Amino acid sequence: MNLLLFEPRELSPDGDATVTGGRAAHLRDVLKVGPGAQVRVGVLDGAAGIGVVTSVDARAVELRCQFDAIVPPRPLVDLLLALPRPKVLRRLWAQLAALGVGRVILTNAERVERDYFDSHVLQEDGYRPLLIEGLQQARDTRMPAVSIHKRFKVLIEDDLDRLCPAGRRLVAHPGGDTAIGAALSGVVAGERVLLAIGPEGGWNDFELQLLDAHGFQRVGMGPRTLATTTACIALLTLVHDAIRSAERSTVKNVENMK
Amino acid sequence: MNLLLFEPRELSPDGDATVTGGRAAHLRDVLKVGPGAQVRVGVLDGAAGIGVVTSVDARAVELRCQFDAIVPPRPLVDLLLALPRPKVLRRLWAQLAALGVGRVILTNAERVERDYFDSHVLQEDGYRPLLIEGLQQARDTRMPAVSIHKRFKVLIEDDLDRLCPAGRRLVAHPGGDTAIGAALSGVVAGERVLLAIGPEGGWNDFELQLLDAHGFQRVGMGPRTLATTTACIALLTLVHDAIRSAERSTVKNVENMK
Repeated sequence: MNLLLFEPRELSPDGDATVTGGRAAHLRDVLKVGPGAQVRVGVLDGAAGIGVVTSVDARAVELRCQFDAIVPPRPLVDLLLALPRPKVLRRLWAQLAALGVGRVILTNAERVERDYFDSHVLQEDGYRPLLIEGLQQARDTRMPAVSIHKRFKVLIEDDLDRLCPAGRRLVAHPGGDTAIGAALSGVVAGERVLLAIGPEGGWNDFELQLLDAHGFQRVGMGPRTLATTTACIALLTLVHDAIRSAERSTVKNVENMK
Repeated sequence: MNLLLFEPRELSPDGDATVTGGRAAHLRDVLKVGPGAQVRVGVLDGAAGIGVVTSVDARAVELRCQFDAIVPPRPLVDLLLALPRPKVLRRLWAQLAALGVGRVILTNAERVERDYFDSHVLQEDGYRPLLIEGLQQARDTRMPAVSIHKRFKVLIEDDLDRLCPAGRRLVAHPGGDTAIGAALSGVVAGERVLLAIGPEGGWNDFELQLLDAHGFQRVGMGPRTLATTTACIALLTLVHDAIRSAERSTVKNVENMK
């Protein structure tokens, strides 16, 4: 845990917070904090800052927190993911939040098993603690928005433009010849990117054509076939890297114009 | 399983193989093969090819295999990794093999717990099946070489030039300003890259200086702190991507010279 995240309601107007349960145990037993110790803190969807420990006992740790003036920006990458097996998704939530996604759109597809939709990891009380774990790992405060869609066609035709109204759209597909860096070479600073990743076995032809028709450019990352978890991490990494490159070159251009 | 891998001794001179146990069950119950079915096959550290199923029964599946003339090249990326927790390493083996590494060098570091070295996942019979699982996922045949080093200084000063005699050396470090793509922008096709990844909590100053002194350039991937598994996948992805970019631009240059 590199950042201790609070729900807004856990903080008093003065920035006092009382932590109990697993988070208190972590502060006491792993970070071994005592009064006066400083801990990185943050408010969900708010600012990060520093908390000073004011008391520690067997039940609770109390902190007084001060927050930065600026709230971290929402990550510029959104993920459209064919619903993976519950066991895979359970491990993926924290990693997605750590890598940084603004929105996670989970969808049905032909090669998604119907009973995956019954899983507890699709309930907010199932996935929210895992997302918080990932944010705390990466020192982010911005909770990804999550939505779940049982009808792919309705999602793409009717809902997607509302969920992701602007920005680039990519679909990862084995044999997609274009590298992500090349597909995003013209991206401008601040532009959002929506990345679609299919089920094990891939999107079917209908799904791919529907994505094509809604502005998704096909991208690939070489000849190796990766499992869903590995593929998600690898593809999100490449999109983030392309966005950072675009930001760096924007900064350079602005400096050159001076 | 996207490729069925054999040990060389499992194949007759004519390319006949008999599969039993878990692999037979997978062929029968998941892939549902019958006589005449074609399956992608490969020999460890040898060629890939096609196997035709000749018989299926409750105990065994028999195949006759034909192999390509060309053996896939060894992946150009080697990994120097501070030994992670056994639970993390157990999940990492298959993912490393799937992403593609020529060599995995596991090392001690100040922030590595000593008892991690007692784990079964450091025994060859513990990790080899996991590496094979990753190769079968990614359709590769090249088994990563693995070595384990309990003394970091001896490894870097005495052993590393023998293990990785040529190529680029990078060390991932939080706050490393240079992006991997920029650090590898001048890499030539076929050049190897050795990537060092530290323990949770990072390398200490002595370790970083020793790596500096032995040619490792510090690289970073932005402000987010990632857990070991996620970081390994993300960093290996960026190195592979930079190498593929270099290969593409070499091809372009050769075409321009015609």
